[in-house]
Amino acid sequence: MNWAGVSEPFQEWWAKRTRAGWFDVTRIPFDEMEGWSFDDETGNLVHASGKFFSVEGLKVTGGNGRGTWTQPVIHQPEFGVLGILVKDFDGVPHCLMQAKMEPGNINTLQLSPTVQATRSNYTRVHGGRPTRYLDHFRGPGRGQVLADTLQSEQGTWFWHKRNRNMVVRVTEDVPPHEDHQWVSWDDLRRMLRIDDLVNMDSRSVIASLPFPPDPEVPTAPAHHSLGHVLSWFTEAKTRCDWTARLVPLAGVPGWTRSARRIADGAGDRFDVIAVRVQAGNREVPGWTQPLLAPRATGLAAFLVRRIGGVPHLLARAGHEPGLLDRVEIAPTVQLPDATAGGDGPAPPFLDVVEGATREQVRFDTVLSEEGGRFYHARTRYRLIEVGDEVPVRVPPDFCWTTVSQLRELVGHGHYLNVEARTLLACARSL
Amino acid sequence: MNWAGVSEPFQEWWAKRTRAGWFDVTRIPFDEMEGWSFDDETGNLVHASGKFFSVEGLKVTGGNGRGTWTQPVIHQPEFGVLGILVKDFDGVPHCLMQAKMEPGNINTLQLSPTVQATRSNYTRVHGGRPTRYLDHFRGPGRGQVLADTLQSEQGTWFWHKRNRNMVVRVTEDVPPHEDHQWVSWDDLRRMLRIDDLVNMDSRSVIASLPFPPDPEVPTAPAHHSLGHVLSWFTEAKTRCDWTARLVPLAGVPGWTRSARRIADGAGDRFDVIAVRVQAGNREVPGWTQPLLAPRATGLAAFLVRRIGGVPHLLARAGHEPGLLDRVEIAPTVQLPDATAGGDGPAPPFLDVVEGATREQVRFDTVLSEEGGRFYHARTRYRLIEVGDEVPVRVPPDFCWTTVSQLRELVGHGHYLNVEARTLLACARSL
Repeated sequence: MNWAGVSEPFQEWWAKRTRAGWFDVTRIPFDEMEGWSFDDETGNLVHASGKFFSVEGLKVTGGNGRGTWTQPVIHQPEFGVLGILVKDFDGVPHCLMQAKMEPGNINTLQLSPTVQATRSNYTRVHGGRPTRYLDHFRGPGRGQVLADTLQSEQGTWFWHKRNRNMVVRVTEDVPPHEDHQWVSWDDLRRMLRIDDLVNMDSRSVIASLPFPPDPEVPTAPAHHSLGHVLSWFTEAKTRCDWTARLVPLAGVPGWTRSARRIADGAGDRFDVIAVRVQAGNREVPGWTQPLLAPRATGLAAFLVRRIGGVPHLLARAGHEPGLLDRVEIAPTVQLPDATAGGDGPAPPFLDVVEGATREQVRFDTVLSEEGGRFYHARTRYRLIEVGDEVPVRVPPDFCWTTVSQLRELVGHGHYLNVEARTLLACARSL
Repeated sequence: MNWAGVSEPFQEWWAKRTRAGWFDVTRIPFDEMEGWSFDDETGNLVHASGKFFSVEGLKVTGGNGRGTWTQPVIHQPEFGVLGILVKDFDGVPHCLMQAKMEPGNINTLQLSPTVQATRSNYTRVHGGRPTRYLDHFRGPGRGQVLADTLQSEQGTWFWHKRNRNMVVRVTEDVPPHEDHQWVSWDDLRRMLRIDDLVNMDSRSVIASLPFPPDPEVPTAPAHHSLGHVLSWFTEAKTRCDWTARLVPLAGVPGWTRSARRIADGAGDRFDVIAVRVQAGNREVPGWTQPLLAPRATGLAAFLVRRIGGVPHLLARAGHEPGLLDRVEIAPTVQLPDATAGGDGPAPPFLDVVEGATREQVRFDTVLSEEGGRFYHARTRYRLIEVGDEVPVRVPPDFCWTTVSQLRELVGHGHYLNVEARTLLACARSL
């Protein structure tokens, strides 16, 4: 791993955590899974307890994009907590980060938030040990809440999935468990440039961190007022002409189930697979579970352009079938785009992203998506600086916004999709 | 009508509009409706064109309230525009308001926004005349957008219903059509105290008006920071333990359909009825349509209490089966409460509202809900001032908030329900 200036103590801790445990992840046939089966009536892939999550069908109706179409989708109704504790050490803000293994992760171990727990986990409905540090986020003794919103996750693969993103400041002494480490913002921003290190949940919460403060730009305002941006977004939602709903997985045409996978006919989207996980650390028992395995590395890129001297990101009103409100603010270009289908025209500005020169590339890192649900799902995140060749006037689904404006919107739910939040975290690391 | 200080020119205009037209609304059997029928397969009440709206079934599953239950619900997927134009005359802000007839209205005529149009209306997919003043809200020539958000409507009677609430400022001359009148904020605030005059759509948009400015309270801050309020709301959402979905109306037990109505067994919620509308004004043709007729006048009340000298409203995380995100900020007490069922305990603080003395009542007016979908649906809106007898510490579903905080939240969707927005408009009129 190219540590790119990350501090030595962190590197040493990470090496130790890497040696401390590993997962052996094996792809298995569906019928070797324990507790998981296809429901006789619906064909949905469900757990015998009715808990965890299920793989069901998603049907999209109407719209000028692909018309009516279906796909499998992961349904996990409950809200988990993704929380980062922050604390100043000698005036320097630090985040308490966790080294966490997930079966779908590239490298198994990635950097996670202080707390990353489903509701079933943290309410301990099925027993189990208490979630570490949870008391700092919930209940009477918690710290100062700096951010607390429900944020969406991949609307291409999840149905209405959201997690509670929290940032909590503490002033008291909070000793790190061996899986946890206090990390300075300076280290964290360097880590964001390392492939497959900072996991999706961390990036999502980092987008809401109160540091670094936005630079003061008193004389150069944003190209559009925040009111204009909100109006643009509302207008885009009213143009949305499709609806989506869950259907039985058995009723999803064009996808075939074999012993080891559910795959689309064209084979260019994703597989649903089953894995057996065996942990090198004896304390963690093994288990089996389904995972969604995308066929290709995704792409998420914001164009960045100075307007009146102020850097602006080109936001897009992105349509995703699994988002609760169907449309959220997305990167300028994002692939895969389920609503576009496979044979439509190339998305606007893809040529600009793909044709960028080395000088134009401000950020370019391949990062992993949620390793608890996705198998080796990776996205290439890019910030591409452009000039006058990309005009200030853009098509109706696009709007030039500042980092400050996106930061303000990420203080609420239903605005930035998870890829836009990752890129907002990355933009703030520059 | 007790005009309570409203200016003479307005009264004269209103009298003229009242004489200019009337609706004759007659209840008819369902089978005398034209274009409307019950679908053979689903039992849903639908229009032959597939447009307008439909009456379908709603099923709620889980939850500690009523468990699993069903009811009819109005389904109208498209977003309309509710827009108010504002303009300064001699430095005094005015709103362009409309005298508009709706079949379900008490008094037929009520005060509406400048524009109140469904998307089918204003995009003129079926021909018809252009919507007056719409160009000020949409397209290149529009004025300065001061507010533009999608806001929910009654989650007890509608499925995922939202309308686009807009406030647009103009500086140029905009002559009022005979159905329209420029109304000063001073007149408008007096009108809010008159029973059944300012319609629901107006009140919803008035909640977003930029005037009057909030009083400056430099030394006395809100009891909770806005961040705390957002965190309280997020926490309340994560406790939500029920789900809702549309089902065929034929599959809704406990409700019976007769020739002239669909009614619940207990007869204490609402009827779905059919009406024939004949207009006194020959220019408007007659039509037939279904309406939802509640059995009783509703109640929506905020408790108001000074904390540290600053007035606070007691907000509640309100659960409504038809809301897209299930939970929105609601008045302290709101009846009917579909999720509570008919035989549960009285809602918290209802005794305080009902036991209020004359001195405690800051606002008390009976106002109508949407007369295009509801028949004589009225709600008693109240602001009740309380003292130390209502503690600062309140149950988890409640939170003390300031008017300024609610104003900030109403700048986004998914926060305040329509009854809370009406009361916010009323609170700002004091």
